[in-house]
Amino acid sequence: MSRSSRPNADLIIHNAAQVWSFGTRVAGSGLPDVIEAGALAVADGAVIWVGPESALATEICAAPDAVWLDAAQGLVTPGFIDCHTHLVFAGTRAEEIAARCAGESYLSISAKGGGINATVRATRATSEDALVELALPRLSRLLGFGVTMAEVKSGYGLSTESELKMLRAIQRLGARQPIETIATLMCAHAIPPEFSSARERYLDLCVSEIVPEAARLGFVRFCDAFVEQGAFEVEEARRVLERAAALGMRPRLHAEQMTSRGAIDLALDLGAATVDHLEALQPTDIPRLAASDVTSVLLPLSTLFLDDPRRAPGRALWDAGARVALATNLNPGTAMSENAALALGLAARFNGLRAEEALEAFTLGAARALGLEDRVGALCPGFQADLVVHAAPSLAHLVWHLGISHVRQVVKRGRLVLDRRDVPRCS
Amino acid sequence: MSRSSRPNADLIIHNAAQVWSFGTRVAGSGLPDVIEAGALAVADGAVIWVGPESALATEICAAPDAVWLDAAQGLVTPGFIDCHTHLVFAGTRAEEIAARCAGESYLSISAKGGGINATVRATRATSEDALVELALPRLSRLLGFGVTMAEVKSGYGLSTESELKMLRAIQRLGARQPIETIATLMCAHAIPPEFSSARERYLDLCVSEIVPEAARLGFVRFCDAFVEQGAFEVEEARRVLERAAALGMRPRLHAEQMTSRGAIDLALDLGAATVDHLEALQPTDIPRLAASDVTSVLLPLSTLFLDDPRRAPGRALWDAGARVALATNLNPGTAMSENAALALGLAARFNGLRAEEALEAFTLGAARALGLEDRVGALCPGFQADLVVHAAPSLAHLVWHLGISHVRQVVKRGRLVLDRRDVPRCS
Repeated sequence: MSRSSRPNADLIIHNAAQVWSFGTRVAGSGLPDVIEAGALAVADGAVIWVGPESALATEICAAPDAVWLDAAQGLVTPGFIDCHTHLVFAGTRAEEIAARCAGESYLSISAKGGGINATVRATRATSEDALVELALPRLSRLLGFGVTMAEVKSGYGLSTESELKMLRAIQRLGARQPIETIATLMCAHAIPPEFSSARERYLDLCVSEIVPEAARLGFVRFCDAFVEQGAFEVEEARRVLERAAALGMRPRLHAEQMTSRGAIDLALDLGAATVDHLEALQPTDIPRLAASDVTSVLLPLSTLFLDDPRRAPGRALWDAGARVALATNLNPGTAMSENAALALGLAARFNGLRAEEALEAFTLGAARALGLEDRVGALCPGFQADLVVHAAPSLAHLVWHLGISHVRQVVKRGRLVLDRRDVPRCS
Repeated sequence: MSRSSRPNADLIIHNAAQVWSFGTRVAGSGLPDVIEAGALAVADGAVIWVGPESALATEICAAPDAVWLDAAQGLVTPGFIDCHTHLVFAGTRAEEIAARCAGESYLSISAKGGGINATVRATRATSEDALVELALPRLSRLLGFGVTMAEVKSGYGLSTESELKMLRAIQRLGARQPIETIATLMCAHAIPPEFSSARERYLDLCVSEIVPEAARLGFVRFCDAFVEQGAFEVEEARRVLERAAALGMRPRLHAEQMTSRGAIDLALDLGAATVDHLEALQPTDIPRLAASDVTSVLLPLSTLFLDDPRRAPGRALWDAGARVALATNLNPGTAMSENAALALGLAARFNGLRAEEALEAFTLGAARALGLEDRVGALCPGFQADLVVHAAPSLAHLVWHLGISHVRQVVKRGRLVLDRRDVPRCS
């Protein structure tokens, strides 16, 4: 594109050690995946140019009031896309989790009213407004770790009214702070206590009422189901997800976390967007996933939170050519942590990803999982200017320095939404 | 003590949900371990009163210019005492660690000049002034997680000149920022490359020169040795530690991390202050440690950093009555993390400690390990006013919310050294 035909840049990021564009993954970008000594220009919230800083002056016209952001020889990456969270909830599980860590059994905790039912009770008893307020600090912490988009699931309401309340809260959160929120219906998270001896009736309610009402909201993109012992069997999940798919919501599955029970077959059958967890994935399912468009979502913060000795086979999935994403799984029962830096470091340690693969899984891989890879997850012209400046000289530092954020600046849609110029450089 | 005989308080902390004094562990304090709805008063850098806030007005006279610190219904705990770090070093191990996480073997990394020798080369080539500057951001991050005292080891110099340079840097750091530093000589960290085929000559150098020169500095409290395959055998460590003990430095041992090779026998023989790591501890050694004054130091960040499937037996040690401490082990090769919140959460998950035990291990337990339990690690009258206000309603929240700091304020010797009133309350 000639210089004169470009819009004037209103934000210019310069003095970066590297800009991670993931250009080879974006058709027609002509960019390499990483540009050394790079710079990036933004206009109207979108990336308009990425390249070596030496070419900046000849390629870009800056608006007179353009913001010049000095990356201070740090890394510029796409913003992290957290494609699996349950960050809208009420109540705390602190005492329960601390007791579990100290050796108390899950059965004993459940007998005292703990577990997911505790969160369901508290969430049902909390207003939509209050759910929004409770979630804001969690989103604020995520932003501090460089997250610019978050998928959020319902699933602690488990009634028509409460599931819709959660979904509306998720949607409203997107307008209250910089992180874009993507809503997922998860009425098939657990059988609610009032249906504990009438599973079929709860599934009927999902199919006849909760799913259609959620679809009517117009903004719910996914429907997720938890296939697990004690949650839902494959054929139960199928009922809910097929109904949701017919109404325009793409299926996702919590699959192969504790036990292996056929969730991959279902996901492939339905053409699901994702299968998430996978600590119990069967090796024979790896090539099947690789041959599909289903994204395998790694959630190593849960692996750690539960001190699960098994590991989701991220390395094998990547090597087989599967789509792989990485997410926090932020939730009160099995992954109470917004620490995206820790998730990245664990993807390397637990799941065997290289630093650049872990980054891709947390950006473009997650964008693909959400079906948004044409606008977020990469830093190429035309992409939304969602990005992070890290005070670190290479990606390897983000794996090395475990659980420590080096986020210096966060830009969302071209706007500087977090600025911590005093963050010390990684060392 | 009558009201009139007390000094006027110059700092008063009020509106705390709980104050963790560990009073039952402090002879004569008369305090319970935790005071609900508590308050605390400080004069001249020391705690002068702890009790229920309802008694504050009748018990304490505030100086006219006293600082009133609102704990906002959070927890007040002693500052964390990080009794095991190697935070003075030069160079990065980022690329090496990222490669190791991605599956490259330690042998291949060593062949390329990686491993501890890389840190030794870089540290030797760096001036004392530059070592101080490099360490400051690490201490700043530790402070952000609530650490108010840190032991720091030499051991990347491995020559008389370089070990002394490191020790002086450690000492100087204490005057440059709020965290008190405690220096430990660790010339027995590795055999330096120039002595690789002359181990005995390096040990001779330690005993005849490095240890005596370090003792002459006057501020080095401990001498530590790494008993491990590829590092030092028991009888080699004994030579160094006995010489150090004779010159007034208390022995410590990196023990039973990868392999079990008699380090506990040596520690008990020498009356060592601590044995640290213990992933490979033999069950029969647990009652022996419990019957001694040797503190067992848990370093779960290393367990995680290395993805070691074994766990140091914190629960069994605690139940047997052993002294137990918790530390970060901050170092570039096996625990690059200042995340003390994560260390606390892992002590619960990996080592089976209850929330209050993990806190005690990270405060009073660590103070005992350092022989400073008469002045730090508890919040009783006469103790140094080193404390943290956490924006959380109970200790269980610190275990639940994994790897996330809720530190709101840090007070060191009665002075407010960190103030983050905008930190959101744990939820």
